[in-house]
Amino acid sequence: MESQLIAWLRERLPAHPLLRLGPGDDAAVLRTAGRSDCVVTVDLLTERVDFELAEVDPVRVGRKCLAVNLSDLAAMAARPLAAVIALALPRAGGLELAMALYEGLLPLAEEFDVALAGGDTNSWDGPLAVSITVIGEVTEQGPLRRDGAKPGDRIVVTDHFGGSILGKQFDFRPRIEEALLLHERYGLHAGIDVSDGLSIDLAHLCQESGCGAVLNLDALPIADDARRLAEQRPDGVTPQQHALRDGEDFELILAVPPSEAERMLAEQPLGVPLTDIGEFLPKPGLWQLDDQGRCKQLVPGGWEHEFD
Amino acid sequence: MESQLIAWLRERLPAHPLLRLGPGDDAAVLRTAGRSDCVVTVDLLTERVDFELAEVDPVRVGRKCLAVNLSDLAAMAARPLAAVIALALPRAGGLELAMALYEGLLPLAEEFDVALAGGDTNSWDGPLAVSITVIGEVTEQGPLRRDGAKPGDRIVVTDHFGGSILGKQFDFRPRIEEALLLHERYGLHAGIDVSDGLSIDLAHLCQESGCGAVLNLDALPIADDARRLAEQRPDGVTPQQHALRDGEDFELILAVPPSEAERMLAEQPLGVPLTDIGEFLPKPGLWQLDDQGRCKQLVPGGWEHEFD
Repeated sequence: MESQLIAWLRERLPAHPLLRLGPGDDAAVLRTAGRSDCVVTVDLLTERVDFELAEVDPVRVGRKCLAVNLSDLAAMAARPLAAVIALALPRAGGLELAMALYEGLLPLAEEFDVALAGGDTNSWDGPLAVSITVIGEVTEQGPLRRDGAKPGDRIVVTDHFGGSILGKQFDFRPRIEEALLLHERYGLHAGIDVSDGLSIDLAHLCQESGCGAVLNLDALPIADDARRLAEQRPDGVTPQQHALRDGEDFELILAVPPSEAERMLAEQPLGVPLTDIGEFLPKPGLWQLDDQGRCKQLVPGGWEHEFD
Repeated sequence: MESQLIAWLRERLPAHPLLRLGPGDDAAVLRTAGRSDCVVTVDLLTERVDFELAEVDPVRVGRKCLAVNLSDLAAMAARPLAAVIALALPRAGGLELAMALYEGLLPLAEEFDVALAGGDTNSWDGPLAVSITVIGEVTEQGPLRRDGAKPGDRIVVTDHFGGSILGKQFDFRPRIEEALLLHERYGLHAGIDVSDGLSIDLAHLCQESGCGAVLNLDALPIADDARRLAEQRPDGVTPQQHALRDGEDFELILAVPPSEAERMLAEQPLGVPLTDIGEFLPKPGLWQLDDQGRCKQLVPGGWEHEFD
């Protein structure tokens, strides 16, 4: 059946100038000679952890599996070039499922000019697992790392946070263009994308940079879906808590020197809002300002894969 | 637990000059500026299909998961540069299992100078799935493709075939150095590695090249383990059939112009034997010579993932 899928894909895939040799050989060959340094990222999404096939159209799942990788490249301010796709498919209906996944990711690949360079398709008695590796390249500005935030830098974020479970977790737009534009025009120090949750991913950024951060919670750009979720659920979680803790917003958290942040916020150069939500500090940990303007500790919350 | 694994890996991983930015950020950055075209391949191996954790040490599984990818690069006559590793781990004992897999693949990565550039580690209620993507680069000779075999070319193979289930399926050595040396010294037309079985992979090569092939079965280099397997099992499968049909030999099948093949076989430039096992033909299909030297059809046999 892998040969059937490859035959279908060869018909369906647009030619891509980057592909010197596309799917069907032992490996793909990309025309990268003369290009910048390569950026590589992989994400593996699995049924029942990252999605429920009973609840969501596999076309949306396929799109998301590519989109999360593009979001990682956005967090590096890198330009995507190519992707390879590995599937572990349940035996029953596997070919149909594989085609639906590809129907979801193909338009996204086309939109971001990503060459689908190859893959590996397997069937087994387990649930669906999708592993996508994306290769990109850094721009002249170099990669946007996690470890460059400096005390005094402003914490600037794209768009809104919270409630992604109501739809954005599948339909988000990776912030590739936004990251490239910001990295080119402003002197960004560091960046990360929010996959686990605003507070926990900010804590990751702080940890890598050897600093802390204080949040101005009143400034948090809370998504309408965070408010909607708080209303729907009787669990007492506030919209602000959703914004701080919900995973899969796939927005960017950036560390920006104050003068650059001021210019960026005045210019608002993106189609989505940029918001200053706080400052990086020399002391480690996450902090929030209380009503009297004093720092108190903020416990990061979010998602991490757990097992014993 | 992903953070624990990353912390362990950061201690364990040797620094690699290719890694401008290694595991721990949103993506890795490889120093590839000024290098040749990239080659990319992915293989996903799954429990109960590709291995049984009850029967085989996960250290060997980890080694194999990287080795199959290196074999794909060997089939392209490409030099490996870096790998990224995605794991779907069972919840119970996941961290220990992940570390054992890495203990298997790290020495192989070191041996072939492959930078471990990053990964994604997940736990779930499913069996183990390991997806590895390897990035390499072509040499000055360009990639060794599947579609370049010409009628009249000799079919040359490395080492011996069959019975890999007795051990070679885990302990094989990817033919990277062999492929690079042969591609540099001799005018190879095409190549493929044997993962599904000698006859079926030869059929794949023929299909891509738009030709056929006739095998001189008496010349087949049959592995001792193929004979051992035929003795052990009362299923009537002969050593020759094992050599033709068993998967996972991970040897190379090469299409070589006759004069180059003659030189190559006389020189025997590798640590393993090179054998001429037949000829590519203008007419499609796989053929064998019978006792009277006449062509008769050979049905390719091997492994393909099947489902409805």
